Amino acid sequence: MADVVHMIDTEVFLAFSTYATIVILKMMLMSPITSYFRLTKKVFANLEDTGLVKITEDRKKFVRVDPDVERVRRCHQNDLENIVPFVVIGLLYALTGPDLSSALLHFRVFVGSRFIHTVAYLMSLPQPSRALAWIVGLFTTFSMAHRVLTTALFL
Amino acid sequence: MADVVHMIDTEVFLAFSTYATIVILKMMLMSPITSYFRLTKKVFANLEDTGLVKITEDRKKFVRVDPDVERVRRCHQNDLENIVPFVVIGLLYALTGPDLSSALLHFRVFVGSRFIHTVAYLMSLPQPSRALAWIVGLFTTFSMAHRVLTTALFL
Amino acid sequence: MADVVHMIDTEVFLAFSTYATIVILKMMLMSPITSYFRLTKKVFANLEDTGLVKITEDRKKFVRVDPDVERVRRCHQNDLENIVPFVVIGLLYALTGPDLSSALLHFRVFVGSRFIHTVAYLMSLPQPSRALAWIVGLFTTFSMAHRVLTTALFL
Repeated sequence: MADVVHMIDTEVFLAFSTYATIVILKMMLMSPITSYFRLTKKVFANLEDTGLVKITEDRKKFVRVDPDVERVRRCHQNDLENIVPFVVIGLLYALTGPDLSSALLHFRVFVGSRFIHTVAYLMSLPQPSRALAWIVGLFTTFSMAHRVLTTALFL
Repeated sequence: MADVVHMIDTEVFLAFSTYATIVILKMMLMSPITSYFRLTKKVFANLEDTGLVKITEDRKKFVRVDPDVERVRRCHQNDLENIVPFVVIGLLYALTGPDLSSALLHFRVFVGSRFIHTVAYLMSLPQPSRALAWIVGLFTTFSMAHRVLTTALFL
Repeated sequence: MADVVHMIDTEVFLAFSTYATIVILKMMLMSPITSYFRLTKKVFANLEDTGLVKITEDRKKFVRVDPDVERVRRCHQNDLENIVPFVVIGLLYALTGPDLSSALLHFRVFVGSRFIHTVAYLMSLPQPSRALAWIVGLFTTFSMAHRVLTTALFL
């Protein structure tokens, strides 16, 4: 990590920038999906939100929990728990100056695994499809963390 | 993004640093607000936490759910889901060397929208106030992501 | 923050990189712990997940909530709410060029406080052990944010 200044200018950093942006956009997409389900199924978390749709009955009964909405929210939460570590460790990894091919492999496998994870979650695909997608993403991040700690440990 | 090394030294980066810190501090503020409601309303998530206040009755009945506490927690969760993407994409955006005026516009609109979002959420303001604040923040981040991907796509 | 380009190459940045990676790995560890409890206690959030274990009874009754699983999830959530701000503000702080000893103090106290927090949470240690660990981490991040805003405010 001695030449880190030069590293930030490289193709590895551009690749990180591209894949991090794509996977963050994928994570952000979960918010509109949640809103879509909330509005079309009339399932709200706050009483004032019922004002967003046309309701003639008692508004209080639309402040409720729905399995489809909760599924999207669990998927979103899993994204937060996995994509945020990827972005942090991926940035530090990119600054250690890895081979471009090795870096691309990590970034592509991780981002691919998260798209598969989302499809498996939202479509309720049989396990272990979602579990495998999650584990592949986890190990990709561990592999990058390993390089960061072995290249530049400073305790 | 070729001159990224020089970019990290600019006013755009200083502006990002300032606004990112302010909006992260705003997000962190949700934790003490949650604690304040938990302690004053005696609403706890863990049995051992009831030891933090003076209680003469059965402690187990204070491990419960309260609408005010849940509201702060939902606001905090929405911050995590929106502010974290802003910070990641905003950092990469700052490194693409945008105009200072354009960057300041993005940062100010986003941070402003999140303060409005928090006020709208905690005070239960009528919709669509909170929905609009959320959407403005979302599109600001999308706009920065668009620049990152068009300036420096490397797949 | 004028010499930020040179700062990214220093021991302070290496120290940030090391401690950020360690504390992010600690946070990621919460996911496998949650999975471990879900599989061993047969407590699932999705019906399709019951296919991961051998069950002869009606699968629907294993889609349920369990206090031990919820405890791990709350600990994980608290990590997200505190470690993500540390990483963002810690990165910006490292770029302001603080003394190495001062930076190490911040990073070590924060990471130490989060390990203590996790142990206190998972073992249900009597309060205020967990509350103190949380507050120490919070103030460490506030202290770094203070330096970022006083060194390089650009509104």
